[in-house]
Amino acid sequence: MQRLKDKICTHAKIIENRILQVDNFLNHQLDIALFNEIGQEFKRRFANKEVTKIVTIETSGIAIASITAQYFNNVPVVFAKKHAGINMNKDVYEAKVYSYTKDQEYTIKISKEFLSPNDKVLIIDDFLASGSALLGLVSLISQSNAEISGAGIVIEKTFQEGRKLIQEKGLQLESLAIIDSLKDGQVIFK
Amino acid sequence: MQRLKDKICTHAKIIENRILQVDNFLNHQLDIALFNEIGQEFKRRFANKEVTKIVTIETSGIAIASITAQYFNNVPVVFAKKHAGINMNKDVYEAKVYSYTKDQEYTIKISKEFLSPNDKVLIIDDFLASGSALLGLVSLISQSNAEISGAGIVIEKTFQEGRKLIQEKGLQLESLAIIDSLKDGQVIFK
Repeated sequence: MQRLKDKICTHAKIIENRILQVDNFLNHQLDIALFNEIGQEFKRRFANKEVTKIVTIETSGIAIASITAQYFNNVPVVFAKKHAGINMNKDVYEAKVYSYTKDQEYTIKISKEFLSPNDKVLIIDDFLASGSALLGLVSLISQSNAEISGAGIVIEKTFQEGRKLIQEKGLQLESLAIIDSLKDGQVIFK
Repeated sequence: MQRLKDKICTHAKIIENRILQVDNFLNHQLDIALFNEIGQEFKRRFANKEVTKIVTIETSGIAIASITAQYFNNVPVVFAKKHAGINMNKDVYEAKVYSYTKDQEYTIKISKEFLSPNDKVLIIDDFLASGSALLGLVSLISQSNAEISGAGIVIEKTFQEGRKLIQEKGLQLESLAIIDSLKDGQVIFK
């Protein structure tokens, strides 16, 4: 997706030759016009799939998933919670996720009432790197016996093992910008 | 806003006669069609105000703010972070916020690069109750010397003191559903 790649080249910061910091448009300040193009592109890539629900994970997946849902007939978005409040339903699906950018393990949760065996779920997230968050979401959805229609990722880093782990599950994985290397502070797209 | 009130009556849960749990459509599962109506209503209420940026707070404000931005010429959304990752810019505006639903004090942060004295900021959030989160956002924006165009809230509970604290700041405050009481497990709108 060219506009996304252009935005990465002009606005992302590279930290320690391995972290792509995209706070300018994806993770802190949000470029809503770009998110609409991203949503349309996900619709194009999953045009052949039935989708009754979009599932993502807090925090950075939420806005992308919500804008994307508009291109899938406004299906409901459900986000897995990392920081559940005291008033969250206690009857939940749970999975463990490790966050590299926060160096911390989380238990992510989705209330059982929001996933059912009749659902066909598109997973949307901002990044794919180690695959830990995405595998956690796959686990939550699988526990509910819902079907997974596929996974749409905004930015994938190929130098971690995420893609392999997801493809081993037999899932359609679509990443809109795929980065092979951040060495020497340079973004090298696949 | 009638559709929102109807949704509250049919889908919200009342906990301990004081907490309105709206995980079904606002805080965990997200009703994207409803969010579009909410965004249009905020545009109607702030039609006379210039808005160059929408500011909200993670987590539940993000989707509402992002959909709403579409009705304000796709202005950028910036969300204040409660859980900053290690790759967040260190040069930030900060404020303390107390969360009643998590019984916890947070430091919320916005990178200085995403607010400037030229900005005219619309604040969007899901709830107004004690006003702590909203006052924290007002503090962050004021530190940047940006102008505040107003605050748009989805659900306000009048039996806590939030409105008074915000109005003392001279801000236009628009709440789409205003709740006077949750006593006896009943939602009483203003």
